[in-house]
Amino acid sequence: MVEPVTLPDPTMPDFSGWTCPLPLRDHPNVVMGHGGGGQMSGELIEHLFVPAFGNPVLAGLTDSAVLELGGARLAFSTDSFVVQPLFFPGGSIGHLAVNGTVNDLAMSGAQASYLSCGFILEEGVELSVVAQIAADLGAAAEHAGVTVVTGDTKVVDAGHGDGVYLNTAGIGLVPDGIDIRPQRARPGDVVIVSGLIGVHGIAIMSVREGISFGTEVVSDCAPLNGLVAAMLAVARDVHVLRDPTRGGVATSLNEIAKAAGVGIELIERDLPIPETVANACSFLGLDPLYVANEGKLLAIVARDEAEEVLAAMRAHPLGGDAAVIGECVPAHPGMVVTRTAFGATRVVDTPIGEQLPRIC
Amino acid sequence: MVEPVTLPDPTMPDFSGWTCPLPLRDHPNVVMGHGGGGQMSGELIEHLFVPAFGNPVLAGLTDSAVLELGGARLAFSTDSFVVQPLFFPGGSIGHLAVNGTVNDLAMSGAQASYLSCGFILEEGVELSVVAQIAADLGAAAEHAGVTVVTGDTKVVDAGHGDGVYLNTAGIGLVPDGIDIRPQRARPGDVVIVSGLIGVHGIAIMSVREGISFGTEVVSDCAPLNGLVAAMLAVARDVHVLRDPTRGGVATSLNEIAKAAGVGIELIERDLPIPETVANACSFLGLDPLYVANEGKLLAIVARDEAEEVLAAMRAHPLGGDAAVIGECVPAHPGMVVTRTAFGATRVVDTPIGEQLPRIC
Repeated sequence: MVEPVTLPDPTMPDFSGWTCPLPLRDHPNVVMGHGGGGQMSGELIEHLFVPAFGNPVLAGLTDSAVLELGGARLAFSTDSFVVQPLFFPGGSIGHLAVNGTVNDLAMSGAQASYLSCGFILEEGVELSVVAQIAADLGAAAEHAGVTVVTGDTKVVDAGHGDGVYLNTAGIGLVPDGIDIRPQRARPGDVVIVSGLIGVHGIAIMSVREGISFGTEVVSDCAPLNGLVAAMLAVARDVHVLRDPTRGGVATSLNEIAKAAGVGIELIERDLPIPETVANACSFLGLDPLYVANEGKLLAIVARDEAEEVLAAMRAHPLGGDAAVIGECVPAHPGMVVTRTAFGATRVVDTPIGEQLPRIC
Repeated sequence: MVEPVTLPDPTMPDFSGWTCPLPLRDHPNVVMGHGGGGQMSGELIEHLFVPAFGNPVLAGLTDSAVLELGGARLAFSTDSFVVQPLFFPGGSIGHLAVNGTVNDLAMSGAQASYLSCGFILEEGVELSVVAQIAADLGAAAEHAGVTVVTGDTKVVDAGHGDGVYLNTAGIGLVPDGIDIRPQRARPGDVVIVSGLIGVHGIAIMSVREGISFGTEVVSDCAPLNGLVAAMLAVARDVHVLRDPTRGGVATSLNEIAKAAGVGIELIERDLPIPETVANACSFLGLDPLYVANEGKLLAIVARDEAEEVLAAMRAHPLGGDAAVIGECVPAHPGMVVTRTAFGATRVVDTPIGEQLPRIC
């Protein structure tokens, strides 16, 4: 009665048609780097997902899709969360799951209205852990002014999963006249960051590896929809917004430079890097430009709007340390460079994988 | 420099305030049954998630939330997919991920327009497997007339995950005047099922356990939005729709009976159970009423609309075997019974957990 199981034979992707000289870095298997938000993630999306789901909205490769439905202009986005550990200084996977999606929507200029939430639980995880995460998620949603309206729970066998994986998807309205997307960066535009960079990644690293850096580093995980609303109140024509999560500021700016076909030049001494992050990075051999943030945004605006936007950001609790860090230039399109104190420049490339895996 | 990690102390849920006499079945840890769609899933939602996210939309406990945004009346739903194996006769996790969410939306009368898709990949899984699943997902989306517009990919360490977990969320428009929800079942209403039951669960079981039942059982996984549109074209006032996935027909009807405060009486001989499913269930000691379906729906309609709805269903490729299987009654509110060929009745209770874990 018992017969061998024959599974359908999954067709190998046709590597020969891929334009990348090292398609998926020649790995026939998934490696951690495919989830790192860097070049390998990009190749997976470009060569595998876009052809499979191919449509113009997805191919825009923005943090959230902007679409029309029933006369409403909506942003729609999703993120899965596999952070380890589940609880870290400054938050938990529950906070991340809300703020990650609220922020992806905000990067289209949308105010998040509704979230879905899918739990994948590991058999054996304490219900008290699930309860704490659900409470964090509920509190973060209330704080961000968004409502969790639909959900789903699955359980996988003990040893699989890591306690709790989460997914959220979110929808929100994009105000009329708002057109924020990476393709809109133009030479002459100013690059602004909303505050100190590299904090979330180092906070996760410190608790995961049990490393202390003198002062405790607390994640900056926060919802950015209020800050974006404050910015749009003074400047409706913000060109680009991006929250530099996986892969950090460097990866986000590279994506923008490539999408818009502009060069980006950063001024190294203007990068707001807190001393604890600088010390930790120096100790660990990391570059703060590549470390993940969860409550920061990059804005690219026309030069004549920069002062007003910066003032509005600094007046907001999440933008007190906002600073201009560079500009878009006509030279070296698609490339990001940073100018050092000595006047030299170095290329800030997209990382292949991720320095700190599983930080969100 | 290395210090012990102190995690936040997750508060235990306050079991004392719970109304259920056996809250979460007294397990302080997650067990497989919490993901089975039965009583334990219900307790997790009622006692843990609804209080954490508490809001009237979520508390409706429908397959999809119906809400208003920018003047549009939208349905919004999410599902995670952890099925094992990833490929099975009649489909794959990619097909399930599309049809599961399309069908959840359809159960509110909505036509799915857009999907999000989150992949959680296990380090080491073959890219060819990911490619095949993405291709299946894209093909299923095209077949269902829905567009995947936004996505996310995370990678977890080898040994965690099970190759691929998926999450989809979906949005769609609910036509004006449509009000389909479990609470609307009324005594006298007729219960219709769209076709043969128990097929998906047995298909998964056969391939997972390597058991053959003579004829191969092929999953019925299919998008039901077209069938629902055909039904609504002849009867706008369908009271309830439900796709009996996890926990099968029995669980879905129990949820409806409880939500509406009606009794439901099934006629055992009218249940359309294919012989292969009946044989497999008999061999495995399962009850077909509790086995999952992925391309079937239950409809509850007023008696005077039943004939027309049934005719519309039978004229559709996915409703050829549609049949009346019972009715809503004023007796035993909240309870489902089945009447046997000998005139006796037996109670069809909600299962505690799930007979066949991880079928979706």
